[in-house]
This record gives sequence, structure tokens and C-alpha cells, in this order.
Amino acid sequence: MEKILASIITIGDELLIGQTIDTNSAWIAQQLNAIGIWVHRRVAVGDTREAILRALDEEGSLSSLILITGGLGPTADDITKPVLCDYFGGVLVQNEEALQNVLRIFEGRGLPTLQRNLDQALVPDTCTVVPNKRGTAPGMWFEQNGKIFISMPGVPYEMQGMMLDYILPRLPEIYDAPAVLHQTLLTSGMGESFVAERIADFETALPPNIKLAYLPSYGLLKLRLTAFGKDKLTTALALTQQFTTLKSLLTDITVDEEDIPMGAVLGKLLKARGQTVATAESCTGGYIAHLLTLIPGSSAYFQGSVVSYANEVKHALLNVPEATLAAHGAVSEAVVLAMVNGVLDTMKTDYAIAVSGIMGPDGGSPEKPVGTVWVAVGDKKRQTAVKYQLRYDRRHNIEMTAAYAINELRKFILANGH
Amino acid sequence: MEKILASIITIGDELLIGQTIDTNSAWIAQQLNAIGIWVHRRVAVGDTREAILRALDEEGSLSSLILITGGLGPTADDITKPVLCDYFGGVLVQNEEALQNVLRIFEGRGLPTLQRNLDQALVPDTCTVVPNKRGTAPGMWFEQNGKIFISMPGVPYEMQGMMLDYILPRLPEIYDAPAVLHQTLLTSGMGESFVAERIADFETALPPNIKLAYLPSYGLLKLRLTAFGKDKLTTALALTQQFTTLKSLLTDITVDEEDIPMGAVLGKLLKARGQTVATAESCTGGYIAHLLTLIPGSSAYFQGSVVSYANEVKHALLNVPEATLAAHGAVSEAVVLAMVNGVLDTMKTDYAIAVSGIMGPDGGSPEKPVGTVWVAVGDKKRQTAVKYQLRYDRRHNIEMTAAYAINELRKFILANGH
Repeated sequence: MEKILASIITIGDELLIGQTIDTNSAWIAQQLNAIGIWVHRRVAVGDTREAILRALDEEGSLSSLILITGGLGPTADDITKPVLCDYFGGVLVQNEEALQNVLRIFEGRGLPTLQRNLDQALVPDTCTVVPNKRGTAPGMWFEQNGKIFISMPGVPYEMQGMMLDYILPRLPEIYDAPAVLHQTLLTSGMGESFVAERIADFETALPPNIKLAYLPSYGLLKLRLTAFGKDKLTTALALTQQFTTLKSLLTDITVDEEDIPMGAVLGKLLKARGQTVATAESCTGGYIAHLLTLIPGSSAYFQGSVVSYANEVKHALLNVPEATLAAHGAVSEAVVLAMVNGVLDTMKTDYAIAVSGIMGPDGGSPEKPVGTVWVAVGDKKRQTAVKYQLRYDRRHNIEMTAAYAINELRKFILANGH
Repeated sequence: MEKILASIITIGDELLIGQTIDTNSAWIAQQLNAIGIWVHRRVAVGDTREAILRALDEEGSLSSLILITGGLGPTADDITKPVLCDYFGGVLVQNEEALQNVLRIFEGRGLPTLQRNLDQALVPDTCTVVPNKRGTAPGMWFEQNGKIFISMPGVPYEMQGMMLDYILPRLPEIYDAPAVLHQTLLTSGMGESFVAERIADFETALPPNIKLAYLPSYGLLKLRLTAFGKDKLTTALALTQQFTTLKSLLTDITVDEEDIPMGAVLGKLLKARGQTVATAESCTGGYIAHLLTLIPGSSAYFQGSVVSYANEVKHALLNVPEATLAAHGAVSEAVVLAMVNGVLDTMKTDYAIAVSGIMGPDGGSPEKPVGTVWVAVGDKKRQTAVKYQLRYDRRHNIEMTAAYAINELRKFILANGH
């Protein structure tokens, strides 16, 4: 059974100088995977004719499907369209549907339409136009030597619209793709090497069409099984069988059987119990609340948060005694315990999380260096506090503290939940 | 003047199936750029021998420097090291320094050291070891046909440590790199096409060694000038000259002359004025507070936030009258104005931001569809409210609302600041 191979080409200097992080490739890969198309290469190149032509040649020789993003805007640095027009032959012609789309968008914004915007409706006569309902640049679908090349804008929202509305529905009709299925087990509390040691026999005995990967991620270790096969049903059965075995070997450290973020793991737990949570955040500055509210439907269990960056706010809104702050400092066990109690009273929730720490780069001291964090979780009857010593930069210290703190409450509920 | 060309190869199926977003490449590119090395290609390949060998061949033929991340872990899916050992010849030998490092890390964690961890100290005898102070997998530096290949772990914190401590200090001694300098102007309030129209003459007259790029980003448009040249001083002078002209053409829409995020723009403004801010957030769930506190030193001007997801919290902590909530609903001008007043009273800051909206995917109605957002900003004397209609997914609606809301306060302070 041959895999259908795809390449993603992203075009734009901003990707090469590190000004922009490429999130398009991951999104596209997820979508293609779900329909059994295997992205085996992703290439980013700059806004130069030579680099784009080389990438088209190379990826065209290695893959059946080549998805291209970027370089379709109305300004002079956007050169993808003329380069594609040369590469696939043909001349630029005005596309009526694309023109109406440009006019509609500019009218809707109450703005005059400039020549450079009208020019966005020009497309090579060798392509099929992929409509863009979300922006002015049309997509272009080319076929050559049995390969498909599709060019889309780099704006994520526009690219996603084209993929969902037009491209993804058409691909399964073209390719007889094998099934590619994934199943991921979330674990916590045991290092990668030790897990590998424990499941060594399982891993060795895996059939050749099922692959195991270890993905450490902020206090979690994800174990991903990927299965390839001729048809979806047989492949799914084989995958489920192996996944069941894997689970049985790791029951003591299993967090969830879905690949969901930590905020969703806690959300599922609270939803199942019909209980609620609030947070009191100093050093994470609202990031825990953000992770929790990123989950659709979180209003069912998340009440709110007090971000108490200043000590006066800890005192005024969370009832942390000024004497406690003075005696122990804001980053201390006594203060996070007072914060968790304060927010439980204020928000009237079943559980709460409180954090206080020093995220850096400044603010550390010999006794409390940068990366010192106190986390408290609990309910009205019982609270526990734990100290972490992190060693990352400010952003990662914040992200990791948030993930750890949510995990602490998860463990608390499983051990002490009422 | 020849550019020194570099390629980045990232290895790992998780990058190809979209499970992980590649942030390493952007970070590496930024660092190399700063020392004048131009990343012209980035390639992601899976954990297969064939794909890795092909990428080594290809990038080795196109670039002088090839940086490789991923696939160095202790588990069976990590195959980068044996493949490199074959590619560059040689045999695996134990490296004493790397071994001591593994033992030190496992002792520090109070864990037994497994054979698979000890094996991480094995390296090809054809490489120079790049020490990894932050993890167990050593880096490997190979030279072949005048090209340099460096393999690093995929864990961002470990990769960054190796780059900063060892690799980046050595590269300038090896390459006589030309200067590559960037300067970015942040603008707001005018679309890409209209800006391009206004600066068309400027763009046409740019010398061949200076390039202009347009980067739209959440309510901002970034205009980036990139200059290449033999020496840093001449190049910097030429760049500054063009940048000054660019600024003079866009004074009315200029936000900042540094490429900094919106949170930092507001932070600079508040710091310069010695003033403070707080937020009252419903639909953004703490994300505005997060953007503000992500900036080092933000405790100088950020006091705190009330994340009032539940209506009871809006009433209890922000003094939003129950009658107002009942009459207008939580997503309304009246409620965000009450929220901004409430948080100004509670946090005693000079300014405040309040938001309430429907981020989706559920919760919309015909009168208030998903994406409806009210934002209020102001001080005790004066408040203004504005309504947005967003059309993205939940995460992007949150991110965009936060960026817009911070920008609203920036505009308010410039117009009405006391």
C-alpha cells in the first residue's frame, strides 16, 4: 500500500528571519493526515524567484501533492503569482469571480478599490481558481505531470477557509489514500526513559505498520501510536488493540486517552463532577485563566480569576494579610495558601488555584532566585502548596507554571475531591 | 559580497503530522541573522533514515552551514545520531564529558541512570561534541567539504543553551559574514494596499541592497526594511537613512519604531508617563493581562486584573449593577463601561481596559452572533467603548480582541491622556 506523499512549501522572508512562527504548516498537516495524506516534507523559502522555482522542482519530484502558502498579497514583495505563472506556463487573465470578490470586500469595508487590489483578480490561465471568501487573493490549483500544486495565501484564516471549503472536500475524490490513524495517551509523573524501559517489550513487538513516538510536553509525556493500513476499519481495529495494551501497561500514570491540552483535561474532570474553579494569579498574570477559558464551554465550570500582580491587590481582593506579605514576601507558601483561600471565598467555587513566583529576567535574589514559584491548590476544607524551581526564560516559566498548576489541581481532585 | 547561506533541518514526525508547532526554526533564524548569516531554507522531515539522508545531501549542497534539530532522545524513535554517524563515517564512542553530564543530571534528580541514558553519551568519533548543560543529549559538530553540520536536540531550552553557550560565539570566527540588518516600523489604522500606494515612490527608489516587506499582524502593519552590505557601519547608515524617509512618510499612522508586541508598546507609553493600568476581562479570560505581564518589568505599571467570566463576578468584584446585566446582557456597551469603571475603583489605576464578547464556537444569537465584542477603555474622567465584529475561531478571536483592546487604550492615552 503506497502512501500518498505531500509537501508543504511556505514562502516568505519573515519565516526565514524568524519574525513569524509558521503555524500554517502544522494546521495543514493535521488536516491532510485526517484524510490519509502523509506530509513527508515541509520547506520554507524566501521571496525570491530562484528559491521558489527550486522548491517547486524539488517537491514536485518527491510528492504527489504540493501545497504552497504565502506571497500572494497586493504589495511588491509578493512574487508567488508571477513565478507560478512562468513555471506552469500561460498568461495572467482577469478572473470574473475573483474580481467580484475583491469589489465586494472593499465595498463592505467602505474603502476605495486600488489598481493593486483589482490586480489580485488576475490569475494564470493555466490554473483553476480556488475561491477565497475570506480575503482578496484567490487560490490557484495547477496540475502537471500527474502532480497537483495548490497555492494559497499565507494569512492563516484565509488559507484555512480555502482548505475547508474547497480543497479538503476534493482531495479524497482524487487520491485513493491509505488510512493513517493516530491515538495518543497522555501520561504524567514518569520520565521518558523510564516509560520506555517499562514498555520496551511492547514497543519491540509492535507490527511494522504501527509506530510509537514519545512527545514530552510541559509536565506531560504524550505517547503517540500511528497506524497505516489499506482500509480504515482494519487499521483502526489493529490500532485500538495496541492502544489498549499500551494503556494497560501505564494505568498508574495515565492522564487522558485523548490528545488534549492540560486545561481541557481539568475541564473534563470538573464538568463530569459538576464543579467549579477560580484562579488567583500573581506571576502567571492571567495565563492559567487563559488556558482554562481557551476551552469551548469552559463557562460551565470556570467562574473567574483575580490577577493580583501588585501586593495591594493581593490584600484588597484576596484578603492576604499585610502581615503575611511582610513576614514571608509575596513568593511564599504562606501567601499562596492565603491567596487560594481568598479566591475560594471571593469566587465561591469548589476549587481554586493560586500561584506566586519570580518569572525573570529580573527580580531574583539569592534566597529566591528567578524561577522560584509557589503553587497552591485546594478546596475550602483542604489546601496543599508545592514549590517549583524553574530554569527557563520568562515566557516558558509562565507557560510551564500554568501547566504544572493545572496539573496540581487535577491530582488534588483525584486524591481529595469531594 | 556573498551571503553566508544556512539551512535548518528539523527532524520529527510530530512536526509533519501537525502535533507540534516548530518554534525552534524562528529562534535559530533570529540568532543567525543577528550575526549576518542568512537562513535561506528550512526543511522539516520525518524520523526516517532515507528522509534525513536526503535532507543532509540537499542542504549540504545548497548551504555553508546546516543546523539540525531533533531526534536525539533516548527512545527508539530517535534515529538522528546513528544516521549522522553513517553519513559522516566513523563509529560511536563514549564521550567522557557527555557521560559525566548524564550522570550529574540523573543524580541531581535522584533517579537511577538507565543504560539508554548512558548511551546518550555515545557520539560518532568524527564529530566535535557540543556540550549540553541543560539536558542529557550532547550536540554534534561535523565538518565535511568545507561545510559545517551541527546536530542539536529538539527541546527548545536545550537547543537554545547550546546555541548561546557554544555555537553562536564560534560562528563569527569562522565566517566573514556580511552585515544583514533589519529595522521595522509598526503602524496601525491603514490597510496594506493604501500604505503601499502612499510609499510607492519610496519603494521603487530603494537601492538594490535594501528590501521592504509588509507584515500585517493583529491590528498592526509592520513595515520591515532589510539591508545587506559589506560592513556593518556603512550598511547601518544606509538603512537608517531609508528608515528615516519611511518614517517621515507615515508619521500619522506610526505606532513604534521597534518590532515589539502591542503589550510592550502600551508598556513603554505607561512607563514613560509613570502611570498604571488594570484590566477587567470577560471573554478574553485573562489574555490581555497575560500579554501585558509577558513584558519584563511590567509590574512597574500593571496592577492586576479581574477575570469576570461569570456574571456574579462582574457584579461582586466590579460593581456592575445586576439591573444593567439584566437589561442589556453581559455583552453590551453598558456592561463594559460599568466594568471599566468598576476595575478603576478596585485597582486604583490611572487607566483600565474592559472587554466582554462571544468568542465561539457556541453562545451566539441572531442579535449578538459569535465574534461580537465590546471593548471599553478610559480613566476616571472619561471612558470610550467600541464594538468589534470578529470572524475567526475561538483562539484567534481571543488573541485579536486582546491586541485590539490594548491598541484602543494606546489611542485613548495619546488623545486624552492626563
